Amino acid sequence: DDRDPSLPRFRLAGVRQHDGSSAQPWVTFEDKVYDITDWVAAHPGGDVILRAAGGSIEPYWNIFSIHKTAYVREILNQYLIGFIDAADLVNGRPAAETIEDPFQEDPIRDARLITHTAKPRNAEPPNEELDREFKTPNGLFYVRNHMWVPVVPEEKADEHVLSIELPDGETKTYTLAELKEKFPTHKVTAVLQCSGNRRNDMTRHAGKTNGLQWGVGAISNAVWEGVRLADVLADAGLKVADATSSTQKAASEQEHPDANSLHVQFSGLEAYGSSIPLPKALDPRGDVLLAFGMNGEPLPRDHGFPLRSVVPGTVAARSVKWLSKIVVSDEESPSQWQRRDYKSFGPNEGANPDWDKAVSIQEMPITSTVTGVWVGDCVRKGKMPWMSGSKQTGGVADIGAVERKVGFTAKTQAEGAAKDFGMPGCPKETPAEPVALQGYAYSGGGRGVARVDVSLDGGKTWDQAELLDDCAVPGNCFGNKNWAWRRWRYLGKLPIMELPGSSKHCTTLVVKATDDAYNSQPETHGSIYNARGNLATAWHRVRICPRCTNNGEGKGVTWSTGETFGCGFKK
Amino acid sequence: DDRDPSLPRFRLAGVRQHDGSSAQPWVTFEDKVYDITDWVAAHPGGDVILRAAGGSIEPYWNIFSIHKTAYVREILNQYLIGFIDAADLVNGRPAAETIEDPFQEDPIRDARLITHTAKPRNAEPPNEELDREFKTPNGLFYVRNHMWVPVVPEEKADEHVLSIELPDGETKTYTLAELKEKFPTHKVTAVLQCSGNRRNDMTRHAGKTNGLQWGVGAISNAVWEGVRLADVLADAGLKVADATSSTQKAASEQEHPDANSLHVQFSGLEAYGSSIPLPKALDPRGDVLLAFGMNGEPLPRDHGFPLRSVVPGTVAARSVKWLSKIVVSDEESPSQWQRRDYKSFGPNEGANPDWDKAVSIQEMPITSTVTGVWVGDCVRKGKMPWMSGSKQTGGVADIGAVERKVGFTAKTQAEGAAKDFGMPGCPKETPAEPVALQGYAYSGGGRGVARVDVSLDGGKTWDQAELLDDCAVPGNCFGNKNWAWRRWRYLGKLPIMELPGSSKHCTTLVVKATDDAYNSQPETHGSIYNARGNLATAWHRVRICPRCTNNGEGKGVTWSTGETFGCGFKK
Repeated sequence: DDRDPSLPRFRLAGVRQHDGSSAQPWVTFEDKVYDITDWVAAHPGGDVILRAAGGSIEPYWNIFSIHKTAYVREILNQYLIGFIDAADLVNGRPAAETIEDPFQEDPIRDARLITHTAKPRNAEPPNEELDREFKTPNGLFYVRNHMWVPVVPEEKADEHVLSIELPDGETKTYTLAELKEKFPTHKVTAVLQCSGNRRNDMTRHAGKTNGLQWGVGAISNAVWEGVRLADVLADAGLKVADATSSTQKAASEQEHPDANSLHVQFSGLEAYGSSIPLPKALDPRGDVLLAFGMNGEPLPRDHGFPLRSVVPGTVAARSVKWLSKIVVSDEESPSQWQRRDYKSFGPNEGANPDWDKAVSIQEMPITSTVTGVWVGDCVRKGKMPWMSGSKQTGGVADIGAVERKVGFTAKTQAEGAAKDFGMPGCPKETPAEPVALQGYAYSGGGRGVARVDVSLDGGKTWDQAELLDDCAVPGNCFGNKNWAWRRWRYLGKLPIMELPGSSKHCTTLVVKATDDAYNSQPETHGSIYNARGNLATAWHRVRICPRCTNNGEGKGVTWSTGETFGCGFKK
Repeated sequence: DDRDPSLPRFRLAGVRQHDGSSAQPWVTFEDKVYDITDWVAAHPGGDVILRAAGGSIEPYWNIFSIHKTAYVREILNQYLIGFIDAADLVNGRPAAETIEDPFQEDPIRDARLITHTAKPRNAEPPNEELDREFKTPNGLFYVRNHMWVPVVPEEKADEHVLSIELPDGETKTYTLAELKEKFPTHKVTAVLQCSGNRRNDMTRHAGKTNGLQWGVGAISNAVWEGVRLADVLADAGLKVADATSSTQKAASEQEHPDANSLHVQFSGLEAYGSSIPLPKALDPRGDVLLAFGMNGEPLPRDHGFPLRSVVPGTVAARSVKWLSKIVVSDEESPSQWQRRDYKSFGPNEGANPDWDKAVSIQEMPITSTVTGVWVGDCVRKGKMPWMSGSKQTGGVADIGAVERKVGFTAKTQAEGAAKDFGMPGCPKETPAEPVALQGYAYSGGGRGVARVDVSLDGGKTWDQAELLDDCAVPGNCFGNKNWAWRRWRYLGKLPIMELPGSSKHCTTLVVKATDDAYNSQPETHGSIYNARGNLATAWHRVRICPRCTNNGEGKGVTWSTGETFGCGFKK
C-alpha cells in the first residue's frame, strides 16, 4: 500500500454507514473516500447526489455523463478524507457496482439536435433550423434537462396531481383534468431561453466558464396553452394585501401578507425546483401559465408532459417541467438552482462568490445573434431561405429588392473579383461583395425589440436590420406583452478586403439589439464575465475572412467562418 | 439694396397676414423672412412658436434664451423665403417690437442650482448636493421647464380643474379639491430623470449632441403624494377589456377596447404634452400618481403646482407638470415631445432620422455615475460626508472601517510619497493612495440595482461598491417596485502612477451598474451615440492625474480632475 500514509484507510462496510440517510454522507471514487457533507447543498443536481452516498459515485457518473469533466473532479478532490482499505481492493479497485439507469425511459429525440450531454440530455437545434420558423417546431425546441425525463403514461396524464401549499400551510390539490375543467384556457407565445445561451461565446472571448457550452441555440419560441397560475392560486385560497395598499399602510397594518414579499416555488417530478416573485404570478398582464399544450399539441415529454409552468419574459429555469408541487412562501425556492446556479457576478468575483449577495436571474437582459450569413454569389442568386419561403418563414423578399438594396449588378463573383489575389487568376483584393445576415433578438420582462444594429466592419459603422413582423400573422402571437423573439434580416456590402496577411484581411460582422426600455447589449464579454458563464449577452461577433480558390473548376474568393451557417463560405 | 436679388422682397404689412391663424405662418429675423409652415410640427416648443408668426422672432428668442445657439439658426435658415422690403427698414432693420415676458412670474430658485438656460429655466444641483441625501430637497431638485411656469395662486389651487376625456369622447372634470376628497391618498418614492441626463458626457466622448448639456444632475429623488391615476380613470368611467382576455379572445370579440392599444395623454397648463401606455397607468403595482405633494410639502411651482402626473420608472418627460387635461386615446400624444424629442436612434441615423421608426422613451435603461471622489489624506482623515453624517445621509462608516478596507497606515501622504517626482522633494511615483468614491445608480421600470462595479484602472480590474440601504430608514420608501435611486460608495487604493509624461500617468475611475434583470450599461458612448444626445448611459469615467506640488508649505502629490467634486484634488 504505497498510497499517502498520512491519510486514513476505511473499510467499505464503514463507508456504507455514510449513506443518504447519514448526517455525513461519503462517496468513493476509484480507491479514494470523500466526505461530501459540505458539498450537497451546492451540488448542481441537488439531493440526487445522495443516491450515491455510502458507495461509489462512478456508476452514477457513467450515467450522468455531465460529470465527466476535469472541473467536476477538482470539486470532488476538495473533499478527499482517505483511502479504501487495501483489504477491500482487487487490483487497486473495489468491486464494480451496477445501478439502474434512470435515463433508460428518456424519449427519442430529433436527430438534428446538437447534443451537449446525453444524460441528462441537453441539446440545441443547429443554426440552420433555429429561427427558420417563428414558432420553433416541438421536436427542434432546445432541450435542457437537469435529470431524467419522468415517466407519466399518456392514459394517466389527466390523473397527474398538482399540490398547492399556501403561506398559512393550507394545501389544495388539483388533477390535470380538474385544472382543464375548472379554469379558462389561455394561450401565450413566449420564448424560453437558458441563462447559459451563448456561453461558448463568452468562453471564446473572455475565458473559461463552468457549464454547458451552448451555442446560440439555447433559446426557442412556442405558443403555450394552459390555465393562468393567478386563477389557480386564487381558487386555492391565496389571499394577499391589495397591491395599492402598500403605498398607504405599513405591512403590519394589513390583513393579508404583502405579495411583494412572497415567492411561488415550483417543484418538478424529477427533483428540480425554482421560484418566481409572487407579483409576477399575479400580474394581470404577466401571462404566467400552468401549461399542458405546446404549438397545438400536448406538451412533449422533454418539455414537461403533462404539466409545466411557463413564465414569459423570465429565464427558462423558472418554467419548471413535470410540475407537481407549488409552494407560496416568504422565501425563494431553497434549491441550489435558485440560490446558486442561476445567478451572475462581477468579472472579479470568481468561481466561489458570495452567492447570497447576487439576485437570482428572473427577467432576462436583451440579446441578439447572427444565425446565418450569405456572401457573394449566394446573395446574388438569392440563396437565403427568406428569398423563397412563406411569409411565416420570413420569406417576403425578392431578388429585385436585394439588388436595389445592395446595388450589385448581375455579374457573378468570379467576374467581379478580377484583381490578383496572390496567385495567378486570384484577385488582389475582394470586390465589395454583397452579404446577407439573419438572426433573432430577444429581451426579457415583456420588453419589445426596438432596433437591431448591424456592423460589417467590427463596430466602426452601423446600419439597421429589418425586423420581421411575425406577429402580424394570425395565430402567431398571444399574450399581453412582447414575450416572443424578434427575427431580423439584413442586406449589405462587405468592406473591401485584401490578401491574407494584410491588416485589412478579414472583417467582423457585429449585431447588437436595443429593447424598448433602450437597454442595449454589453460591448464585450469581458465586462460581464462570470465564472459560471451566465447571461453571455455581449454584441455577437462573427469574423469572416476571404481566401482565394483556384482549383481548376473556378477561380475566385471563398469565405471562411467557423461560427455560423449560411452559404458562400466554408466552416 | 445689395441683398441677394434672386429672392423676393416682402412688405411688413404682408408678413403680418401670415400670423398664427394663417395656414402658412411666417416669421422675420433681422431683415429676412422665413416660412415656418413645415417646421411648426417639429418645433421642440410646440405651437408656442405661432405667437411670433406674422412678425419678428427676435423678441421671443431674447426671452426664450434657449434659442441662442448656432444650431437653432441653422434650422431657421432652411426656411428662408426672402427679405423685408427696404421701405420697411431703418438702418437695415425693421422697428423693434416689444412683447410681454411670459417668464416674469417664474419663481426664485435656490442659488446653488447650476443653470443651463434661464428662460425657460433648466438647472441641476451641483454634484456636492445631488445625492447628499436620499430624498432630494425640493429646492435642489433639478428643474426642467419647456416653457414659463404657469401662475396658479395658492388660494385658487383647490379650484384647479383637471379634465379627463375617454376614448368614446365622454369628458369628466375634477377640481383638485374633489380629487383630494374623493380618492385615497398614496405616497410613492420615485426618481425623475431627464432623458438628457449626462448628455455632456456623450458630447465629450462621442461627439456633438443637440440639447441641454446636462451633467450628472438631471435626476433627483423624492416622495410624491397624490391619488392613483387608475382610481381616477375608473371613476371617470373608463372601461377596458379584462387584461387576461387578450389571451383568450380576439380584440373584435371584446366588449371594451384592449388597454394594450391605448395611451394616456397628459397636457400641462403651459403647452407641454406627452403620453404613457395605458397598461402602465392601470398596473396595480405601477404606482402612477396624480400628485399634489412632494417630500411632505405642496408641489413647488417649478415642479408642477398644484397638480402633476408622476410616472415612476419612466422618463420624467412623461410626468407632466401643471396638469390640466388627460385624454385616453388610441394614439400617443401628438406633441413633438412624444413623437420626436424623446426618442433615441442608431449612431448612423443622424440629426434627421426616421422619427416614426423609433419607440418613444418610456422605461429608462440602467445608469450610474460617480458624484464625488476623495484621494490621499482626504480619505485618511475621513473627509467624505458619509464619515460623519446621519444614517439618512449614508453616514455609517468610521475611520477604523476605512483603514481596515483600504489598509493604509496613519501616516500622511507627504510622508508616504517619498520618491523623486521630477523636482526635489517630490516623489518619482505616487504611493498606492487610498481613494473614496460615491455616486448613485438607477434603472427604470421598477428594476432594482443589483450591483455596482467600480474600476480604478480604466476597466481592467473590477470590484463591487457598497450599496446604501436607504429604504431601511422608515419613511424613506413607498411604492410597489424599485422606483428610487440607489446610492453607493466605495473605498479602494489607486494604482501607482508615475511622472507626467509616463504612460502610467493618470488613471480612469469607472463605474457601471447592473439591474435586477441583469441589464448593464453600454461600455462606450460611441455605441449608443445619437445626435439628440438622449440616454447617455455609458460607463461613467472620471480621469484623475497626479501632479507634484512643492509650494513651500507642503511637498507632495495633488490630483486633478475636471469632472466631479470631492477632496484631495483640484478642478
